[in-house]
Amino acid sequence: MENEFMTEAGLRGLLDLLEAKKYSRARDEILKNNTVDIAEILEEVIEELGIGKAIILFRTLPKDVSAEVFAYLPIDDQIDIISGITDKEIEHIIDELSFDDMIDVLEELPANVVDKILEKTTKEERRLINTFLNYPETSAGSLMTPDYISLRKNMTVAEALAYIKKEGMDSETVYTCYIKDEGRKLLGIVSLRTLVVSDDHLLLSELMHEEIIYVNVLDDQEDVSDTFKKYGFLAIPVVDNEHRLVGIITVDDILDVIDEETTEDFQKMAGVAVSTEEYLDMSVWKHVKNRLPWLFILMCSYVITGGIISSFEDVLSKVIVLVTYMPMLMGTGGNSGSQSATLVIRGLALGDVDTGDALKVLWKELRVSFLIGIVLSALNFARIYWMDGQGVPVALTVCGAMLFIVMAAKTIGSMLPMAAKKVGIDPALMASPMIASLTDMVSVVSYFALATLILGI
Amino acid sequence: MENEFMTEAGLRGLLDLLEAKKYSRARDEILKNNTVDIAEILEEVIEELGIGKAIILFRTLPKDVSAEVFAYLPIDDQIDIISGITDKEIEHIIDELSFDDMIDVLEELPANVVDKILEKTTKEERRLINTFLNYPETSAGSLMTPDYISLRKNMTVAEALAYIKKEGMDSETVYTCYIKDEGRKLLGIVSLRTLVVSDDHLLLSELMHEEIIYVNVLDDQEDVSDTFKKYGFLAIPVVDNEHRLVGIITVDDILDVIDEETTEDFQKMAGVAVSTEEYLDMSVWKHVKNRLPWLFILMCSYVITGGIISSFEDVLSKVIVLVTYMPMLMGTGGNSGSQSATLVIRGLALGDVDTGDALKVLWKELRVSFLIGIVLSALNFARIYWMDGQGVPVALTVCGAMLFIVMAAKTIGSMLPMAAKKVGIDPALMASPMIASLTDMVSVVSYFALATLILGI
Repeated sequence: MENEFMTEAGLRGLLDLLEAKKYSRARDEILKNNTVDIAEILEEVIEELGIGKAIILFRTLPKDVSAEVFAYLPIDDQIDIISGITDKEIEHIIDELSFDDMIDVLEELPANVVDKILEKTTKEERRLINTFLNYPETSAGSLMTPDYISLRKNMTVAEALAYIKKEGMDSETVYTCYIKDEGRKLLGIVSLRTLVVSDDHLLLSELMHEEIIYVNVLDDQEDVSDTFKKYGFLAIPVVDNEHRLVGIITVDDILDVIDEETTEDFQKMAGVAVSTEEYLDMSVWKHVKNRLPWLFILMCSYVITGGIISSFEDVLSKVIVLVTYMPMLMGTGGNSGSQSATLVIRGLALGDVDTGDALKVLWKELRVSFLIGIVLSALNFARIYWMDGQGVPVALTVCGAMLFIVMAAKTIGSMLPMAAKKVGIDPALMASPMIASLTDMVSVVSYFALATLILGI
Repeated sequence: MENEFMTEAGLRGLLDLLEAKKYSRARDEILKNNTVDIAEILEEVIEELGIGKAIILFRTLPKDVSAEVFAYLPIDDQIDIISGITDKEIEHIIDELSFDDMIDVLEELPANVVDKILEKTTKEERRLINTFLNYPETSAGSLMTPDYISLRKNMTVAEALAYIKKEGMDSETVYTCYIKDEGRKLLGIVSLRTLVVSDDHLLLSELMHEEIIYVNVLDDQEDVSDTFKKYGFLAIPVVDNEHRLVGIITVDDILDVIDEETTEDFQKMAGVAVSTEEYLDMSVWKHVKNRLPWLFILMCSYVITGGIISSFEDVLSKVIVLVTYMPMLMGTGGNSGSQSATLVIRGLALGDVDTGDALKVLWKELRVSFLIGIVLSALNFARIYWMDGQGVPVALTVCGAMLFIVMAAKTIGSMLPMAAKKVGIDPALMASPMIASLTDMVSVVSYFALATLILGI
């Protein structure tokens, strides 16, 4: 099947079966899909027919499937389902979930539901779950799972494979196995590929990699995803401050992290408060709360810009035509600045550019902006002089300001993100809205100052 | 070792060894690192000591390491190294590279170097390489490798494992194995985990998954990466139009694709032509070429905005103070619009929002923008009336315009990306610069129209 889950017609058919209460036929239909897609179909059922029918359908699913499907559902639907099934069933789902999925679910559920679930676990499990729940939300600790294959260095390949055969189904991945010493310190890693292609009698101590790339349990998830991108691993070990292996992170979880981090960058760059909630799920109130602060702050900066204009009111009232070109100068300044800012912010995020490259970047931007400024100025001169029929002084004022503004905007746009990074502020905050506000100030000052000079007012 | 490669001191030591021509000690030092890091260190060597020393060091590396390191080097360095080593060595590197890395290298190398390399391959290999080189640059075909484990459905688990033991080292991954029929059509997949935990005598036909998620060889890489994100696979099969298995794509290559696609979105959203070249590597000329077109197009839109202002010159010359508030209205309009545009563009990219949700989005934005507009207007009224000491008519004009502009900007900002998607244009193009230009026009018209009305000019 391609990428797309059930067809429109297939979904309609399923909904019809449910409405006609033909649950076992509906179950057979839905089970033809991948668990990820079953979760999506279930969401549709909830939306179209309500939670009641969805729960009946959910309860007809085989237990191992239902746990996986549950893990893929959005949190609201998870809560609804939990409140509609028996304690026994909840217990079963939690049992079947992989450890990291369970932690994700528990993190989102209301406290009373979590308590209800934790009651059903052993004391030892509860301790482990609580440790995991306490890692900061965006840390390596919150991404990892303790379900990895742990081998000993004096095992042979045959023994290791026999161990994996026994334990392999309960582990998050079997493709990378970890070898620890008595103090739980990580000694080495060995891949299942190596085990499968090696002779049975070889010792793991001869096969294992000892130069291990790892992350610390408190590392930020962005650093973890950078490490995955750099090395292309399937899994990475997580150690605590005493260098003891406490868990592993697998690449499938990193794909979500990358999306999350990118969304965060986009939000910051647009002057919106960071949130992982989906656009449509977020209330109007929350949208306002997330957007108003930056709009307000940036608006305040325009009080200064307005003040600057006021101080040039004399010039303006004499040559009112200057106002006509103001939006163009401000707009082009803003656009020029955000081009540079975006390129530098992205370069910093990918590691192509570093704060140490500030001078190289500045020199590049100065040349780029000079060339762009000259071209745009020339085009404007032609337009203003011939098409608008303004005199040379006005044309010269606008074009001189254009060149200066483009150069200033690109300098500000490229340097501000680097400066932010240097002092530990997220460079993504120095994007379009912020840069545009600053360049607007610069635009207004330079334009009117030049006008005073050239027009001799 | 953590995330970070060689320390500053370690690198300095290595460079000293190279300057003192102690190559074998330098090799021993560098070999303590992961191949990804060796490539980074080699880049430093090239930068600090020139390509000559780097080639000498490169040639001292064990053959399997040097091929891997080569694959991780930037294209410029690859070309320099190829021109400094013997044909025999080139042949060897190409031999050792995994198929998809080799294709990546060949795609970037100049034609004469590619010919030189292809001369050394067999006719059959050359045919395969040429097929792969001909897939469109951002298609699934250009990402895939033909080196996968291919099994038959009547094999037992023991036979399959024996086969993997023999062939496993030459394959891109052994963790997902593929079962084809006689016509090369894909019948099913089986994971190495399943093989390792299953009884030796079971047949693959009993174990294999037959509901397979696959991609087409001509699918865009963005769709491929969406499929990976959705299902969390380690590898995905690629089929041609006749549904024959032609290759597989592994998740490590998808991490690069995701970065590339994100960068593309950022570039489009900033009005910069899309390019995969790193910021610092790109010539000034190319930077100008990539940025000028959009700046020019957007600048032209300001000719209209300027024209609108001209037509209101009467109003302006009478109440010159109106100009003072123009940048604030335009700036806030632009910022409001790009907030909405960014949220919608990101929502569309993640699949949270769909073109079918247009009415829901519109209704949300109208409410959000009304509330934000009211708050900002009220704040402005207070400032203009009390702080600036203007009369009620001016304050009312500015505040009325503010409310209207914020609402118009958020409507335009949210609807334009959705409309673009609907007609097949990339929504990312409808971001900040484009939206700001449009809202500037709206701002100017509404502001001066309202001024004419309220101030009765």
